Amino acid sequence: MKALSLLVAVLLVTTPEKADPAPPALRDATARLTGAALASDRAWTRLSELCDGIGHRLSGSPSLDQAVTWAAGALRDGGADSVWLQEVRVPRWVRGRERATIVAPRREEMAMLGLGRSVGTPKGGITAPVVTVSSFDAFEALPAESVRGKIVLWNVPFTTYGETVRYRAWGADRASRLGAVASLVRAVGPIGHRTPHTGNMSAYNDSVPRIPGAAISVEDAEMIARLQARGQEVRVRLEMEADTLLDGTSHNVIAELRGHERPDEIVVAGGHLDSWDVGQGAHDDGGGCVIAMEAVRLMKDLGLRPRRTVRVVLWTNEENGARGADAYAHTYGKDPRRRHVAAIESDGGVERPVGFDTMVRRTGPGQNPDSSDAARTAFAVERLRSLAPLFAGIGVDRFMAGEGGTDVSPLMKLGVPGVGHVTTMARYFEWHHTAADAMSAVDPIELRKNVAAMAVMMYALAEMDGTLAP
Amino acid sequence: MKALSLLVAVLLVTTPEKADPAPPALRDATARLTGAALASDRAWTRLSELCDGIGHRLSGSPSLDQAVTWAAGALRDGGADSVWLQEVRVPRWVRGRERATIVAPRREEMAMLGLGRSVGTPKGGITAPVVTVSSFDAFEALPAESVRGKIVLWNVPFTTYGETVRYRAWGADRASRLGAVASLVRAVGPIGHRTPHTGNMSAYNDSVPRIPGAAISVEDAEMIARLQARGQEVRVRLEMEADTLLDGTSHNVIAELRGHERPDEIVVAGGHLDSWDVGQGAHDDGGGCVIAMEAVRLMKDLGLRPRRTVRVVLWTNEENGARGADAYAHTYGKDPRRRHVAAIESDGGVERPVGFDTMVRRTGPGQNPDSSDAARTAFAVERLRSLAPLFAGIGVDRFMAGEGGTDVSPLMKLGVPGVGHVTTMARYFEWHHTAADAMSAVDPIELRKNVAAMAVMMYALAEMDGTLAP
Repeated sequence: MKALSLLVAVLLVTTPEKADPAPPALRDATARLTGAALASDRAWTRLSELCDGIGHRLSGSPSLDQAVTWAAGALRDGGADSVWLQEVRVPRWVRGRERATIVAPRREEMAMLGLGRSVGTPKGGITAPVVTVSSFDAFEALPAESVRGKIVLWNVPFTTYGETVRYRAWGADRASRLGAVASLVRAVGPIGHRTPHTGNMSAYNDSVPRIPGAAISVEDAEMIARLQARGQEVRVRLEMEADTLLDGTSHNVIAELRGHERPDEIVVAGGHLDSWDVGQGAHDDGGGCVIAMEAVRLMKDLGLRPRRTVRVVLWTNEENGARGADAYAHTYGKDPRRRHVAAIESDGGVERPVGFDTMVRRTGPGQNPDSSDAARTAFAVERLRSLAPLFAGIGVDRFMAGEGGTDVSPLMKLGVPGVGHVTTMARYFEWHHTAADAMSAVDPIELRKNVAAMAVMMYALAEMDGTLAP
Repeated sequence: MKALSLLVAVLLVTTPEKADPAPPALRDATARLTGAALASDRAWTRLSELCDGIGHRLSGSPSLDQAVTWAAGALRDGGADSVWLQEVRVPRWVRGRERATIVAPRREEMAMLGLGRSVGTPKGGITAPVVTVSSFDAFEALPAESVRGKIVLWNVPFTTYGETVRYRAWGADRASRLGAVASLVRAVGPIGHRTPHTGNMSAYNDSVPRIPGAAISVEDAEMIARLQARGQEVRVRLEMEADTLLDGTSHNVIAELRGHERPDEIVVAGGHLDSWDVGQGAHDDGGGCVIAMEAVRLMKDLGLRPRRTVRVVLWTNEENGARGADAYAHTYGKDPRRRHVAAIESDGGVERPVGFDTMVRRTGPGQNPDSSDAARTAFAVERLRSLAPLFAGIGVDRFMAGEGGTDVSPLMKLGVPGVGHVTTMARYFEWHHTAADAMSAVDPIELRKNVAAMAVMMYALAEMDGTLAP
């Protein structure tokens, strides 16, 4: 009993201070933000206005223009001190009509989606035998004559996104090098319900012919592989009107609540307003936009103006160019009068929130990460961990090193600490870039928790003594 | 120790006889069938020949004719003593081109599938405002003027198939009674990936105009409901070329292995060879066909000819008419020289097998089930339970009263004991009547276990002293 009492005494003395250094005022403010976020269906309504009212919104489309106007209006309604648009020139890839048809050994339409940046096919399409491969290595081992004039099918089972997306990105280029006439990629995602996943291809290599690229469903890819395994030649006709038009005009949407003590230090947070041209872009990334919008509205409504400025940026063109992120960093990231102290990105959907990751890089453009970044990042992780008690009630308890995200990456290259909002992503890649990324895939209660997580992180970083950088 | 020894002695004496009355020869034979089924990928290959090689196969389609020819050939290859076709006249419903487009408040194509038996729309389609309802009761409470000239959307969340399928079956008829011009049903299944589910409508009622019926995805149905909840009128254009042609010719495929002792007593088993005109009809019901085909092949290969005749029937037209089942019972069910002693149906997919259900009805056509059937059925359940040890190794341990199935129903009305093959159906209604009911949704190992379950049940019933009927 004595030993146990001593242990309890030690815990009482040491634990609270180590685990919870947050000042009472910060705890009170973030508790109010959490309570208000969990009580409100406003984020859900906002997401419905965007997803149901406007729908998907690819760069260069009229619907993205509508979304920009809508978002600016919603941010003004939410009471931001200032709301403005930053003009950004964006690529305009258009899908047009498209289809992929198995024409032998029997005729069947496949579930398909052309890939962003792909060229179209000639009128009448491209009809050729299919050669199925399961990896780049297997492909490189093929004799060139078995590929020339064929359509290559990359039938690679989904493992991780990072691993599998390589075939979507580089498949057409690799296939073309050996003389293929088109490239099909098995959908980059776990098996769905005959669900193709679109997404961008990497830029064509000028040294090889530009051949079209499209995604087909897991079911269709496996069927072709089985037919070939039984010795049957599979012939496919691919018809795509895809085209890349001249660049168009889009906008980053920016809004801020000015800090009451250090208005020229900025905590920026947001997601990307553009989406692919299928589904509703609900998880990717309507949700990320809406939770940052709501975070600032809640601060305003509750009269919680932090010391630093909190800024929402809804970046444009993340999906096929990242021009919005580049433009934002170029214009605002280098401004010596208004310094960014943290850049938070939410682009992993709005399933149950579980944590945040962070990365802090050397200051200066064009730098690659180096080992000294590990020490900077470790410092930031420790600072985030010190905030853990503020998030405990919503189950957000993972604070770790990460890699940032596409939209904050250009700011991170300028030395701005990057923070990534992390969810379970339990089903994210089922919906990612598909017609199924829609409101129905969003849990309204988890959405509220994501608003709470984002609001608390923005507020805490804007109140923090010092920053995430050493 | 003494008490324990006594207990062990009691168990040794009493348990085996109570739990396992199966004669050693039956145990040996069924163990061999089980072992051979689990060792073979033949069912998988056969299913691929059907699903990948031929594809979906709606009644009246050339692909169903191909499937009939293929199945007869495969049964001959499998060593059946005789294989023959029974001609059946079947309905020919054709889908044609179809689409459903939201035209206001913004334009968007929906994921849709017209429903079997539906009429088409006039050229140019039907364009009308949508009225969304969540149940028949809610619909009946509406004033007629709020329905007249509208498209009714039955936005009913999936609970059980039996509960929800009523809106697919009767929705158009009910809507028409109040003057609606078309009927849309939220997909009868849990949320998928923007997955519409087709299926049959019940026959039109001659007293009201025939209006078209189609299924839309859960995502689209929920979106329309949300837009309406925000006060926006949703207008939809429905275009369907659907038509019902003159009846066509199809065939039940029948094969048997003659019993060595009582060849004129028949244990029949099978599934339906037709499917809807989307996906591959892999779970519904290619799998059910293939496991019965394989069961007989295994008996032949192992030299296990049972006392009674085992017969495989691959019924035609289960999905939209059940004409194959009616024709079979009419021609073969009443033959006094060759008596059916049991009819086993597999039409619940080929997920993990868990058991069999049974129902035994009074002899005589046109009878409705009555209370005396409960006693007959209870007898059959007990007889099936006595076979439990034969299935224990594959985890098939549920033997219960059931309702039979569509294809054995006409035989059951003649007094033939019906037996239903039961699987978990854990995901069955995600795939049911969709483009996703394909080989990729079938687990090859569970398929082998289903072959074992079917082979053992057919063999055991063909060997049994007495039958399932009292």
